[in-house]
Amino acid sequence: MDIAAVSALPYEEFVDIFGNVVENCPIVTAAVWSQRPFVSLSALEAAISDFIDVLPEAGKEGILRCHPDLAGRHLQGGTLTRESREEQAGAGMDALDSSEASRMSRLNGEYKERFGFPFVICARMNDKANILLQLSARCQNARAVERARGIEEVKKICRLRLQALVLNHAPNKL
Amino acid sequence: MDIAAVSALPYEEFVDIFGNVVENCPIVTAAVWSQRPFVSLSALEAAISDFIDVLPEAGKEGILRCHPDLAGRHLQGGTLTRESREEQAGAGMDALDSSEASRMSRLNGEYKERFGFPFVICARMNDKANILLQLSARCQNARAVERARGIEEVKKICRLRLQALVLNHAPNKL
Repeated sequence: MDIAAVSALPYEEFVDIFGNVVENCPIVTAAVWSQRPFVSLSALEAAISDFIDVLPEAGKEGILRCHPDLAGRHLQGGTLTRESREEQAGAGMDALDSSEASRMSRLNGEYKERFGFPFVICARMNDKANILLQLSARCQNARAVERARGIEEVKKICRLRLQALVLNHAPNKL
Repeated sequence: MDIAAVSALPYEEFVDIFGNVVENCPIVTAAVWSQRPFVSLSALEAAISDFIDVLPEAGKEGILRCHPDLAGRHLQGGTLTRESREEQAGAGMDALDSSEASRMSRLNGEYKERFGFPFVICARMNDKANILLQLSARCQNARAVERARGIEEVKKICRLRLQALVLNHAPNKL
């Protein structure tokens, strides 16, 4: 799918295809459709990033709160989005041994208690050991630092999801 | 459930319960959690309304685009949210005769073609005849007028969903 085909999509198909590039936040994709045509995939990505940046801080926290825990209840209950399931599995989150699982659960709980939003990290860019290391380290940050850091990770996840979707949608499937 | 119990909910339960008061936009609920405690249900409703109001116009259009058509593909395919399904059924959208269905489909199409977002109306406050009348009339509006009108309807839907959820959640279920 080239960017001209993406830009030509009616909003319903656009949201059907790209609605989860920001996890559980189809409003973001649905909003940036207003800015088509996009001259490149980077331009679409930039439109998404800009939309997120102008949200009030509570809105950014809202985006983070729409993300599932890593190795959390949604993975265990089979209720992750397809994208999250693949990303978490790729980082080994579905194959933690019992001590790793209990450490992850404890640290996720501490993080959420401290910040009021979940730990978000681009799982495709990290392995199990590094995720645990980052989670532990980031628990020590100030809240505003961690909110900004979480949003940076949201944008990394978004970029990789966008790239995968554009690669996987052949023009004749539109 | 009283408002003190609502305000005491961790964000995950808050979003689990109230995440769809704005259709397919859990970010809105997730964002306003930052403003707890709420002194009343009206205060929670006002926080949601204020969050929507400060979104850029594209964000408001994004909210509208997260809404399904009335009597559209999601109703026919069984993929509506629970709330939308009940509301559309209550207004008779699941029991249109063939001429009503074809009129609704044609007008929904005209509306989306003209405005780039779907026709949104609080189905609980309207019956089938009135919905068709409104849809036909609102097709004639200017885009900015209709965007604002759609958001007004989003807020009416939100108010009724909030009231129903608070009534239906006994304190001991929290």
